[in-house]
Amino acid sequence: MEVSLIGHTPDPELTVAAAARLCYSPDQVNELLDGLTLKKARQLINKLQQMRHFSPFEHASFTFGIAGVSRSLSHQLVRHRIASYSQQSQRYVAFSDLAVVVPPSIASKPEAQEKFSIAMDAIRDAYQSLLELVPAEDARYVLPNASQTNLVMTMNARSLRNFFTLRCCTRAQWEIRELAWRMLDLVQAVAPSLFVDAGPNCWSAVGCQEGTMTCGEPPSRLGR
Amino acid sequence: MEVSLIGHTPDPELTVAAAARLCYSPDQVNELLDGLTLKKARQLINKLQQMRHFSPFEHASFTFGIAGVSRSLSHQLVRHRIASYSQQSQRYVAFSDLAVVVPPSIASKPEAQEKFSIAMDAIRDAYQSLLELVPAEDARYVLPNASQTNLVMTMNARSLRNFFTLRCCTRAQWEIRELAWRMLDLVQAVAPSLFVDAGPNCWSAVGCQEGTMTCGEPPSRLGR
Amino acid sequence: MEVSLIGHTPDPELTVAAAARLCYSPDQVNELLDGLTLKKARQLINKLQQMRHFSPFEHASFTFGIAGVSRSLSHQLVRHRIASYSQQSQRYVAFSDLAVVVPPSIASKPEAQEKFSIAMDAIRDAYQSLLELVPAEDARYVLPNASQTNLVMTMNARSLRNFFTLRCCTRAQWEIRELAWRMLDLVQAVAPSLFVDAGPNCWSAVGCQEGTMTCGEPPSRLGR
Amino acid sequence: MEVSLIGHTPDPELTVAAAARLCYSPDQVNELLDGLTLKKARQLINKLQQMRHFSPFEHASFTFGIAGVSRSLSHQLVRHRIASYSQQSQRYVAFSDLAVVVPPSIASKPEAQEKFSIAMDAIRDAYQSLLELVPAEDARYVLPNASQTNLVMTMNARSLRNFFTLRCCTRAQWEIRELAWRMLDLVQAVAPSLFVDAGPNCWSAVGCQEGTMTCGEPPSRLGR
Repeated sequence: MEVSLIGHTPDPELTVAAAARLCYSPDQVNELLDGLTLKKARQLINKLQQMRHFSPFEHASFTFGIAGVSRSLSHQLVRHRIASYSQQSQRYVAFSDLAVVVPPSIASKPEAQEKFSIAMDAIRDAYQSLLELVPAEDARYVLPNASQTNLVMTMNARSLRNFFTLRCCTRAQWEIRELAWRMLDLVQAVAPSLFVDAGPNCWSAVGCQEGTMTCGEPPSRLGR
Repeated sequence: MEVSLIGHTPDPELTVAAAARLCYSPDQVNELLDGLTLKKARQLINKLQQMRHFSPFEHASFTFGIAGVSRSLSHQLVRHRIASYSQQSQRYVAFSDLAVVVPPSIASKPEAQEKFSIAMDAIRDAYQSLLELVPAEDARYVLPNASQTNLVMTMNARSLRNFFTLRCCTRAQWEIRELAWRMLDLVQAVAPSLFVDAGPNCWSAVGCQEGTMTCGEPPSRLGR
Repeated sequence: MEVSLIGHTPDPELTVAAAARLCYSPDQVNELLDGLTLKKARQLINKLQQMRHFSPFEHASFTFGIAGVSRSLSHQLVRHRIASYSQQSQRYVAFSDLAVVVPPSIASKPEAQEKFSIAMDAIRDAYQSLLELVPAEDARYVLPNASQTNLVMTMNARSLRNFFTLRCCTRAQWEIRELAWRMLDLVQAVAPSLFVDAGPNCWSAVGCQEGTMTCGEPPSRLGR
Repeated sequence: MEVSLIGHTPDPELTVAAAARLCYSPDQVNELLDGLTLKKARQLINKLQQMRHFSPFEHASFTFGIAGVSRSLSHQLVRHRIASYSQQSQRYVAFSDLAVVVPPSIASKPEAQEKFSIAMDAIRDAYQSLLELVPAEDARYVLPNASQTNLVMTMNARSLRNFFTLRCCTRAQWEIRELAWRMLDLVQAVAPSLFVDAGPNCWSAVGCQEGTMTCGEPPSRLGR
């Protein structure tokens, strides 16, 4: 898995703080950034978090490049609807090689790894043969969930926070959880105040909301 | 593929017409349905279509049961974001048998069918073995796009019209196109005026918008 | 203010439960409702709430008729984006009389009521005169926030729950709070299990999330 | 009315083109920008427009500062749901002066202007008196649609294109039409290829879709 931050709203913290300031102030729009230092912006954002007033967070958008993830992951990912996706097509792209994601639970057990490899080899053979016989969009029916795919995804900071709540949690599958934590690292580096308390609910003042499905573990970033 | 209409807003045409009437009238809300016959409702809806005023169409929702479609299809389907989905999980459900969708282009060519079957057998073997060794959510990495899945989906009439425009078109893949036409049949039966001109753009006054990618075929329901 | 439930997804609890059941079961779609009594459906919905698995709640939609609310309220209301609205137009409808909402804080103070009435009279005069001179869409620029308006609104149960969390809270303005509580009464009557714990956060297991802005009051339905 | 572009996705055309390229190519994500000149990006975007493949346009977001517009306009504006808004609050801000938007049809007729001014004076008096007697959130019920408000709004390029289609059209009210054209000027300056054919339908290959409500005028930017 490779995850990179391709781009984002310039000065995301200043943008969010300026928008929030507008709500509560008689200031003119062209004065919103006057005297708004990064320090003041972060103090204001901190207050917004305490009040759980997250709508101004939507003005900051982040675009990610995501490579080498499975189609299992991408099928989960695109269920997040307040987001934009461009995904490598299996209809229009015929792959000369089958790159796959191997789950650690499989990679770490020789017996499982062998079963997995045999299936992948059979798939690889069938796919290449089928490409000669039918359109690529039909040949791909033999391709596995493990197939690697690439995406460009854009989400705003509010939608990202919801994404992190759900997908950094131990109840999410390992692969999308790994993606979520990597994305969180990337956005915390460029807009720390917007994501200072982002992550699974157990990390924040809200606390675990998984009810009877809780993992019961003490929250730990290391445990990610 | 099995597609059924599980439920829908009662009196969808009356509901849409009453909402539309509200926009342009000093009437009270409790008078909206007074004297609103189905015939009058349909006349009003016909007018809305001519003015392309589709927002009242959103008040009518339709819930579908969709069974026996491939994960290729479901991955395309859930990209439609103005909709609600519940999908059979491959994480929580361990399948005792691997039911698959065979593309007609493969089914009709013995050589292709053979290649396909060999791959499916290898996958079946690997999946059942892996279920003994790793969690179901990881075993499923070997499962193919062809795997059958089931969904419940809800869309409102406006979002459905957009769906039909894109997915009834010959540029959509055969499987989701088949789904789209079946859904269109189902909703036309219960709310004809809301979908009288729904379908690919070539069917409507708008005309083909596919530009250089047009199929060039004369519009035909038979050709679906 | 008049609020009525114009329509809703038939059997909303069964629909949500059937959709939820699909996620975790190898059952076929056409078997989802088999043996699904209302009692069993409610037990399952209760479990979904404990797990905070709310996506199946989206399959149940509710359409409201809302009359005699102010444009202050409607401007707040339409900020809820996962919803559909049809609102009486001030562009296309010329009002022969100016019906207004009087805030209780004004109605209960004679001095305030007098100031308010004087302004309303001046507005009424100006509006009727302007209707003779300019298009209705421009004459309406003199109309006050207090002007009564009518809407038809559709929201699904998940979006409604979010609406109730925000708008039943004492931090919401009295008018939209009144609307929210009335809507909650209406949907609890037809789909109790979907809304059993709906309302402000202080009512639910989550607890107040307003941080420094908390009202500090013990949660009370009477205090609504 | 003052409209400014506060910020936007850096290199919006390159970002959209890179995302689009991903869909159709076996390239790795980290190679997407390799050799992608602005010229090539614009050629690709031009092709996307011809194919009406607009989803990659969503990766480019634009944030506007909007000042001195009426509450009539803002109530229309926030109906566009695929967008983010922060609006100056009439609940939390008590205005020392009542700044208003005067419709040109009123400003240009002395008789209408006089009626308008009388009403505004009465409102101004009532509002300032009420601020002493009741909370600002209730005093504001006397404020007119003409009241000026300020907003920060973020929309992606795809949603903006839809906005321009509807709001640059002569069927939109003059005030939001003026806003739409100003916004279009601003985004065309920084991302010309994304908006080269944006504007009312009559400007584009699609042609007028207003049916019986068409203005019948030849399309003209001057006529805006």
